[in-house]
Amino acid sequence: MSDITVEPIGKQMEKLILDVQQEIVAGLEAVDGQKFFQDKWTKGEGGYGISCVIQDGNVFEKGGVNTSIVQGKLNQDAVQRMRANHEGIDRTAKELPFFAAGISMVIHPRNPMAPTTHLNYRYFELVNSDGKKIWWFGGGADLTPSILFEEDGKHFHKLHKEACDRHDPTFYPRFKKWADEYFLIKHRKETRGIGGIFFDDLSEKDPQELFAFVKDCAHTFLPAYVPIMEKRKNMEFTEDDKEFQLIRRGYYAEFNVMYDRGTWFGLQAPEPRVESILMTLPLHASWRYKYEPKQERHKALLKVTHTPIEWC
Amino acid sequence: MSDITVEPIGKQMEKLILDVQQEIVAGLEAVDGQKFFQDKWTKGEGGYGISCVIQDGNVFEKGGVNTSIVQGKLNQDAVQRMRANHEGIDRTAKELPFFAAGISMVIHPRNPMAPTTHLNYRYFELVNSDGKKIWWFGGGADLTPSILFEEDGKHFHKLHKEACDRHDPTFYPRFKKWADEYFLIKHRKETRGIGGIFFDDLSEKDPQELFAFVKDCAHTFLPAYVPIMEKRKNMEFTEDDKEFQLIRRGYYAEFNVMYDRGTWFGLQAPEPRVESILMTLPLHASWRYKYEPKQERHKALLKVTHTPIEWC
Repeated sequence: MSDITVEPIGKQMEKLILDVQQEIVAGLEAVDGQKFFQDKWTKGEGGYGISCVIQDGNVFEKGGVNTSIVQGKLNQDAVQRMRANHEGIDRTAKELPFFAAGISMVIHPRNPMAPTTHLNYRYFELVNSDGKKIWWFGGGADLTPSILFEEDGKHFHKLHKEACDRHDPTFYPRFKKWADEYFLIKHRKETRGIGGIFFDDLSEKDPQELFAFVKDCAHTFLPAYVPIMEKRKNMEFTEDDKEFQLIRRGYYAEFNVMYDRGTWFGLQAPEPRVESILMTLPLHASWRYKYEPKQERHKALLKVTHTPIEWC
Repeated sequence: MSDITVEPIGKQMEKLILDVQQEIVAGLEAVDGQKFFQDKWTKGEGGYGISCVIQDGNVFEKGGVNTSIVQGKLNQDAVQRMRANHEGIDRTAKELPFFAAGISMVIHPRNPMAPTTHLNYRYFELVNSDGKKIWWFGGGADLTPSILFEEDGKHFHKLHKEACDRHDPTFYPRFKKWADEYFLIKHRKETRGIGGIFFDDLSEKDPQELFAFVKDCAHTFLPAYVPIMEKRKNMEFTEDDKEFQLIRRGYYAEFNVMYDRGTWFGLQAPEPRVESILMTLPLHASWRYKYEPKQERHKALLKVTHTPIEWC
């Protein structure tokens, strides 16, 4: 904990996520050739956000980059969904004042050779019943290929490792492992993809230092993802590949609505903006009884989703 | 509570659901022209079940009729998911012995003019920490059209009302309302379909009387559904109709994995049979950002899913 007042960090985070949103949208538009459409929404005194969405693009079947900067009162259920570790939060309080600024993104490409990806960085403050502010950062980025290209996994992980290492050598090993645990589809006993980094409750250093770390991670996304897309977006694929992709997208949908903390947090808020929250769901998904992948390149993915590996 | 020992009811229920399963499968095979395949599974001493599945049928895109007869120890979380009203259950006990026999079915036709339907009837016993048996019946059946035909809603509800009325005149009004509440997709503030009947924790009469009621309901399914399918299965439809169906199937998937008590109960059990539990998910579903139905016949459905009506 620091004695620096937290409001400036909230403002800095607000500016960062709005900048990063436009940077990412521009980078993805360059890959696709089609523009995102942008919706700005407000919640009266409660905050605002911008939803940038692409649908039926040339390269991206569906994708969204959302920001939201909100404040108000949070009920206990929502607090517990939002934060992994609840220590220090008064659980007897019915509701607590909060401030949250976050960016979240999910991108589903058309081509089954090209991976889905997700990013989310958020800063959170709440005022405990004793008047003390509790603050933390959370977030991460992960890659969800259907067809596994080892070089893509290595590249994505390597760039995120480098961003982590510039701030703390313990971050990547901790946050890589956390991603493998967090993105687990519990009932299937496999991860939704090949991970990346994930962290929550991060308040162990000076907030300015952690802000610099989050900023570095956020700017890492485009160089981590765009080169992969340039290689994969026009590759040839078979009907089997497409079907495998649809099955994996079903698993993705399961994870997002069943286990993702941000989705639950969003949907439990008063007057949730359902369209923005569930924008993460794929345009198309399939569930096939007793589906078994036929191709070796499909089985290759299942090995690493069942037993996560070190990529770098 | 009755002083009749409950084991015979468990046995009667086991026989009933196995009979009803074969009756329903035969009835649906007659509609489709294609056979279901049947998987029998066992869980060692823990029980057994039969999964009857049709996929890529002539009429049915995907459907399953499952039975399971299981026993063992249930943790508190699972007890609370399984039963709406927890009064009388020792919540301090870490786990309690249980017996459950149930049939569950979801059928997704291809043609968007033809409704998806679901049925589930179950009998449940658990031994409380004071050694006292607690037992109840639960279940119901509901209809989920994409394109709304009022006569179909009336027919389905009417037959279930008649089955209820033969046993207790308060059942249909109570259980129809319960279905409207239970099948609500909370975050969307609309029901997944046009309801039917739903009940849980039913133990207010002699168990033999309630068993007779459940038996009557279970045998009501085919006459309630098959005449609708015969009218709808070969109707013409447009691409807009198909898209609307895919969007509604996405909502259906959301309900099943987020809110359905049976799904949660199943997935939280030790070594869940994921394929059987998630067999309820559609073969294809879509999520389209800010989807708005274009046709009046699509908007007609939304009126009754947002504000449930009386069908008979």
